[in-house]
Amino acid sequence: MDFYDKDLVSIRDLTKEQINYLLDQSEKMIPYAKGEKVKKVLDGKVLGNLFFEPSTRTKLSFESAAGRLGCTVIDVSEMSMTSMSKGETLADTIKMVDGYCDVIVLRHPHEGAARLAAKFSENPVINAGDGAGSHPTQTLLDLFTMRSAKGSLEGLNIVLVGDLKYGRTVHSLAEALTMFGAKLTLVAPESLQMPKDIYNHIVEKGCKPVKTAVLEDVIDQADVLYVTRIQKERFPDPAEYQKVAGTYRIGNAILREAKSDMIVMHPLPRLDEILPEVDDTQHAKYFEQAFNGVPVRMALLCAILGGDING
Amino acid sequence: MDFYDKDLVSIRDLTKEQINYLLDQSEKMIPYAKGEKVKKVLDGKVLGNLFFEPSTRTKLSFESAAGRLGCTVIDVSEMSMTSMSKGETLADTIKMVDGYCDVIVLRHPHEGAARLAAKFSENPVINAGDGAGSHPTQTLLDLFTMRSAKGSLEGLNIVLVGDLKYGRTVHSLAEALTMFGAKLTLVAPESLQMPKDIYNHIVEKGCKPVKTAVLEDVIDQADVLYVTRIQKERFPDPAEYQKVAGTYRIGNAILREAKSDMIVMHPLPRLDEILPEVDDTQHAKYFEQAFNGVPVRMALLCAILGGDING
Amino acid sequence: MDFYDKDLVSIRDLTKEQINYLLDQSEKMIPYAKGEKVKKVLDGKVLGNLFFEPSTRTKLSFESAAGRLGCTVIDVSEMSMTSMSKGETLADTIKMVDGYCDVIVLRHPHEGAARLAAKFSENPVINAGDGAGSHPTQTLLDLFTMRSAKGSLEGLNIVLVGDLKYGRTVHSLAEALTMFGAKLTLVAPESLQMPKDIYNHIVEKGCKPVKTAVLEDVIDQADVLYVTRIQKERFPDPAEYQKVAGTYRIGNAILREAKSDMIVMHPLPRLDEILPEVDDTQHAKYFEQAFNGVPVRMALLCAILGGDING
Repeated sequence: MDFYDKDLVSIRDLTKEQINYLLDQSEKMIPYAKGEKVKKVLDGKVLGNLFFEPSTRTKLSFESAAGRLGCTVIDVSEMSMTSMSKGETLADTIKMVDGYCDVIVLRHPHEGAARLAAKFSENPVINAGDGAGSHPTQTLLDLFTMRSAKGSLEGLNIVLVGDLKYGRTVHSLAEALTMFGAKLTLVAPESLQMPKDIYNHIVEKGCKPVKTAVLEDVIDQADVLYVTRIQKERFPDPAEYQKVAGTYRIGNAILREAKSDMIVMHPLPRLDEILPEVDDTQHAKYFEQAFNGVPVRMALLCAILGGDING
Repeated sequence: MDFYDKDLVSIRDLTKEQINYLLDQSEKMIPYAKGEKVKKVLDGKVLGNLFFEPSTRTKLSFESAAGRLGCTVIDVSEMSMTSMSKGETLADTIKMVDGYCDVIVLRHPHEGAARLAAKFSENPVINAGDGAGSHPTQTLLDLFTMRSAKGSLEGLNIVLVGDLKYGRTVHSLAEALTMFGAKLTLVAPESLQMPKDIYNHIVEKGCKPVKTAVLEDVIDQADVLYVTRIQKERFPDPAEYQKVAGTYRIGNAILREAKSDMIVMHPLPRLDEILPEVDDTQHAKYFEQAFNGVPVRMALLCAILGGDING
Repeated sequence: MDFYDKDLVSIRDLTKEQINYLLDQSEKMIPYAKGEKVKKVLDGKVLGNLFFEPSTRTKLSFESAAGRLGCTVIDVSEMSMTSMSKGETLADTIKMVDGYCDVIVLRHPHEGAARLAAKFSENPVINAGDGAGSHPTQTLLDLFTMRSAKGSLEGLNIVLVGDLKYGRTVHSLAEALTMFGAKLTLVAPESLQMPKDIYNHIVEKGCKPVKTAVLEDVIDQADVLYVTRIQKERFPDPAEYQKVAGTYRIGNAILREAKSDMIVMHPLPRLDEILPEVDDTQHAKYFEQAFNGVPVRMALLCAILGGDING
């Protein structure tokens, strides 16, 4: 499992074996991620958090993950207001930050930025989301949350609901799940269904996703209900938005149709896609999912920077 | 003195014994707060600084306190511009940050926010000021500064001067001082005098505060002169503001009326409530007071997170 | 070489011996600056980064340097938006931050701010650039880059090209280089030539600089070509700017006239003063120069705070 000094640009770069390895390592990180155990295996290392757009959860969980392991974080978030506004190219910014750290975590509004950064950086680059592109650590923490709750990813019945067209999260997740033989059900109005290229990709990989617009028809089969936000701006007609959003709003009523051990996930932040009443049920896993960003990113940092928590 | 894993929302939550314990521990922290001694008893811990409004001194002294003890700080200050602006509730933000750290330090513009956060967070919450509400660590460092300078808090003659109506700092401080049998003198124009509920609370606790608008009448009795800023915006008539502000401006002239060992305190930042000429006198304690935020917050973090500097 | 607890306000404060000592120490820091070796000799120390204007490279490299050595950084960058906007004086801000850290790194738009800060701070102050004033750590890293590439600073032929009038970097650098017997060539249009006071200072020190507006005439003699940006705003006539900027744009064509081991330096960020085609040549040293900020600042922090990497 050689991750040492390697970039992570897309979940597609990883084999099933590599993903399993990272999830196994993430499992071992849990007590360290909670601060119950301490082992500063990345002592003296420096991580460069280079965020060209805000992403609270991703940024904070990388900071927490690094800190737990003794790794210093330098924060280049205000970048866009300084060097970049002086006209510096992304390549120059990357080469500069590269000299100040051992690994770069890049968030950028434009697809392809992470691949470009990886080309210009001597140190490894972790893609923390680049526009419509990939966000592989989000996918890893989603997979980890499912595996932790259900014991295994193999053959799970996963229902993805909401905006499947613009939601980057569900694209990478759907692709990764096909590696594990998951059964996918894609619940969205036709106008927000999974884009053709992603759909075709997962079909080629052997997945036979079910498409529907009606959540009620499929929820009773679900092991995992993965909810995403539907953005008002996607709809020319506000009334149409209200109808769609209302249909997919998850509350205790619809959860009565679900298996008792079905889990509800959401990449957060949520607005009213999931009612607060769900928070106290056994189904709610979205805050645990957010926390899982820490052990997963700890495992990844250790793998890339060569820190051995087992040593 | 069981502070382990407990919230600190209001100074009213603490007994006199608990306050004394924290001040004793703060005393021991001084050489560590100055970097003369190093003991990273919070190594591997993570503090979440969640500031919904700026507060330079509080934020920095928590960062310094944590750093001295080996505790990583993750900074959620720009929060309001990211997740919150996407419509996330405070409860959701708290539950998310909760997963990334071991203790949350919350500053919020609205009274009651800290109590709410403590309810939603599994980890302990320290209130770093919530609107007109409490700011208990400020009170602790004020008490610590007085005790360090005067040897004991018992029976001190404390003169509070300036804006006693809107100044949150002096409300909590007055309440806490009554526990220690302090004699309080409240110097303010009638329109800026201590609010009735606070006044009644301290009277109930056995304190018999003296009220006056004339500082000259009472300064010769003072052991401590606690100065607060009077904000121009409080006065409909600018001329009225000038008159009041001028009356309470502390310079060397009025200090000649004071005891030679009277100390002058101020929560900072100051404008012209205290003239720079005072800085070099033996009375000036406001910069030491600011520094005292570090040992006091170190003591509190150790108490809450279970770090033993004596061990 | 007593730097312990001393300020560094201007490169003029240092003797040649002191500079050589710091460059020697910087050399030893290289493996630590790259994270190949770890020795947290500043464990438990706190550095206050007090930036009143943005300076990405300086700020990040101090953060990285501190982090590599175990020193916590507290970031007071947003200062201007908080206490200062409440009307606090620089003196008060300094005295406050002074209580929270062991060394202050100050960036300020006004010349003389660092000297003032050093006066008010009990802890040492490192000037990280104050307006048209000094930026001594930039000078040190420039000298270090030259010495690393050429083996010695003695008698080097240094060509400074671009805006020599407003570019603070080249002023301090020129002064420092005269201590080492460098031959200076000043290439700029007359309107952007070195200011008289700096020019006179270096002549007094025994340097006989050559002035010219034509880079082609002198490039073949250069050991080092130090390029700075020419700002459009300096020219009333845009056509005049284009002509000048075009003349000094460094590409592979003009580099064919240079010695094969001549190095090209630039304080960064660059716009189009140096074409990207130069990046892959043996001449390009500007990204290494940026990196060198880390070992140089590590050496300085150790010298001032008393951390012994050799111990």
